[in-house]
Amino acid sequence: MSLKTLIDENQRTIAADPIKAKAVFSVHGDLVGLTEVDLHARSHTVKVDEPPPLGGDDLGANPVEHALIALASCQAITYRFWAAKLGIELEGLEIAAEGDLDVRGFFGFDDYVRAGFTAVRLEITPTGPETAERYQELADAVDAHCPVLDLFMNPTTVERRIAVPA
Amino acid sequence: MSLKTLIDENQRTIAADPIKAKAVFSVHGDLVGLTEVDLHARSHTVKVDEPPPLGGDDLGANPVEHALIALASCQAITYRFWAAKLGIELEGLEIAAEGDLDVRGFFGFDDYVRAGFTAVRLEITPTGPETAERYQELADAVDAHCPVLDLFMNPTTVERRIAVPA
Repeated sequence: MSLKTLIDENQRTIAADPIKAKAVFSVHGDLVGLTEVDLHARSHTVKVDEPPPLGGDDLGANPVEHALIALASCQAITYRFWAAKLGIELEGLEIAAEGDLDVRGFFGFDDYVRAGFTAVRLEITPTGPETAERYQELADAVDAHCPVLDLFMNPTTVERRIAVPA
Repeated sequence: MSLKTLIDENQRTIAADPIKAKAVFSVHGDLVGLTEVDLHARSHTVKVDEPPPLGGDDLGANPVEHALIALASCQAITYRFWAAKLGIELEGLEIAAEGDLDVRGFFGFDDYVRAGFTAVRLEITPTGPETAERYQELADAVDAHCPVLDLFMNPTTVERRIAVPA
């Protein structure tokens, strides 16, 4: 099934029954070493760790790198879907993401420094036969509809529950 | 080196030369299939894909699952660091994260629906010999200093550059 067909079928299904638009994604895992974390998403397991300067054994990319992986992959896939939706030919796409982090926030050395990224930069290189204007049109549609770009740029409520030992 | 020693050494180093607090994390990659994306963070490669209902071959967790992996792992590691910093004994930690997504945002079926998560829930189960009050104290410190929780809850600027074909 082409992505265009998939999009059209989803639109018909959701128009008939809007509750079908609502999805829940989940992961669960454990701290299995000093800074080593195993996470499971459906059948997939991902190992996260810190490099030695941050106390770990570098057994996987670290949490903020995973946040950039989420952003870069979401952009790439949203380009693919919206290219199909807009009838723009997309042969390939390279992407690079980088984020600035001031570790004084994480370590609590300075309460005026935020814990998270202070700035993030994305560079996207689409390839294909279309004009620069058409790829810019695609980029604008992607940026309005990319779930992880939205997560970065706008506040998202996170409810936390601590299940403390009895 | 214990995490407490690592934290103290970082504090001395950064107090002497604050520029050493500034880190840049980066990833780069390619759309290598219909929705399959290979991303590289230093020596680590992570494959991201969509499940068949979203057009992919399910070769990896999808982008929004990776965002939850980033959040859950960052919380777990921040618990480890802040337990060391506060002198709270932490034997283990289980974590679960889930996020609600209304796919009408991503597909562009309804411009009043945001593309990203509309709500996220975290459940953290620390284990060890401390009292419930001490683990709650730890949770409060973690939530004020966790980089990816900050990313979720607060806006982060993302500059985008499209390198269009000549």
